[in-house]
Amino acid sequence: MNDTSNQPLRRVYFLSNRTAITAETLGHSLLAQFPGIQFSSVTIPFVDTTQKAYKLVDRINAENADNELQSIVISTMADEEISRIIHQSKALIIDPFERFLPDLELILHAHSIHESGQSHRISNQGLYESRINAIDFTMLHDDGMTTKMYGQSDIIIVGVSRSGKTPTCLYLALQFGIKAANYPITEEDMESEDLPAIIRGFKGKLFGLTTNPKRLAHIREERRSNSRYASLEQCKYEVKAAEQMFEQFNVPYLNTTTMSIEEIATKVVEITGLHRISKPAISHLDMK
Amino acid sequence: MNDTSNQPLRRVYFLSNRTAITAETLGHSLLAQFPGIQFSSVTIPFVDTTQKAYKLVDRINAENADNELQSIVISTMADEEISRIIHQSKALIIDPFERFLPDLELILHAHSIHESGQSHRISNQGLYESRINAIDFTMLHDDGMTTKMYGQSDIIIVGVSRSGKTPTCLYLALQFGIKAANYPITEEDMESEDLPAIIRGFKGKLFGLTTNPKRLAHIREERRSNSRYASLEQCKYEVKAAEQMFEQFNVPYLNTTTMSIEEIATKVVEITGLHRISKPAISHLDMK
Repeated sequence: MNDTSNQPLRRVYFLSNRTAITAETLGHSLLAQFPGIQFSSVTIPFVDTTQKAYKLVDRINAENADNELQSIVISTMADEEISRIIHQSKALIIDPFERFLPDLELILHAHSIHESGQSHRISNQGLYESRINAIDFTMLHDDGMTTKMYGQSDIIIVGVSRSGKTPTCLYLALQFGIKAANYPITEEDMESEDLPAIIRGFKGKLFGLTTNPKRLAHIREERRSNSRYASLEQCKYEVKAAEQMFEQFNVPYLNTTTMSIEEIATKVVEITGLHRISKPAISHLDMK
Repeated sequence: MNDTSNQPLRRVYFLSNRTAITAETLGHSLLAQFPGIQFSSVTIPFVDTTQKAYKLVDRINAENADNELQSIVISTMADEEISRIIHQSKALIIDPFERFLPDLELILHAHSIHESGQSHRISNQGLYESRINAIDFTMLHDDGMTTKMYGQSDIIIVGVSRSGKTPTCLYLALQFGIKAANYPITEEDMESEDLPAIIRGFKGKLFGLTTNPKRLAHIREERRSNSRYASLEQCKYEVKAAEQMFEQFNVPYLNTTTMSIEEIATKVVEITGLHRISKPAISHLDMK
């Protein structure tokens, strides 16, 4: 990106009358297809009155005038009047509702309600509560803190310290409603010939995470600088021992070195075939 | 939905060559505009070979033939060849890459790379690590467990037991990279005339959550059935006392009764003006 560092940044606005999570998610996917270009993005949720919309158009146009590059707006406005106002701005408007709802209306033989933020509201209390329950469970079973209810878990993530167990479990619980426990493999465990006693009875639920020793050392270095714990030698030893354990006991595992939390969690679900709540806060999408 | 319960469900596929998070998020937002229609959705991530794509088209077409309703595919395939194969299915294809990338290419004077899953990969190590650090911090400071590093928090969520503090904090950390601690308001705290001693020094960081006493009683009932803790009377008392505390000490607060975790977290960020990492796992979107 050296060659573009002196160029002005392209301004991008993620807008919605609700949380703007959809606009942001779609927007990032689209912009990521242009890795050579530097963007400066801002998310503006809750644009839910015409007054706010007019003010925003003024802001977008003013900022656009300061900049030689046309701005980009990625907007999911359910309200048609607000949407029309946003379309008056001088930015390029990317509006998936405007583009795709007519096609859907045609094949569904129904009018869209153009109501705001349906997808991130609670409507199905049961699904919502199963997600909250999964979070509770995961919090209680982080880092081997409690192990007595391992039997109730959907999955038990195992791996050495700082291999990504906790964020993976939280994402599994928060996004997919999966009861994910985790257990840290200690040096003592590595010296044994068998699986650690605490998890031995749950072989079918185990899933291993591993990572590149260099990256592990870097992460540990930030926590405990210059320690034996963070040394490359120690990280190499632990990673090797953990991977041997996974191989020996047929524990499926994943090398997470270059993966984001989202990718790890999605991959874990795919490999294990666990039931994934696709979007817990929606009522009328029955996932069964 | 009684009138539609005997209708066959409309099948929807969320497809991607990577995590399918974008397809799912956009898809749910679109479908939520048709609350009268029953959908049956399935998410298929990692459609990353032409072979998998052909197999999938066969499956979609076979399932379509069994059903009198045309299926819907919401697909974000960065790979053009795989995308072309998916377009051969008999479903209605909603493809935001196909629709929006040409417009973006025009104004950006650049070709999109059509590479897979850029938006959920780690590329900016710094942003990624700040998100992991936020998760670590939040885990350590859940439910008042540790309070000595409250000074390092970005926000301290306060509220009575089961008012939604933990999921909100986790979402703030996981999605927005915000160091969110939380502190449960106890009965002892309520009887005092002052803010609880532990949080008194951090008034500027406090944010309250409150909820409808009936809903609180319902949630608590699931945990400790027929207890004083879960009684409506007790819930009414606690909610009232907590809200009085927020009012008295000018703690901004939110009634979360009908809100999802996503909505609460987005609203908290909006009200407090906290810096929100829009999508931590992207390199070339500099949020500064």
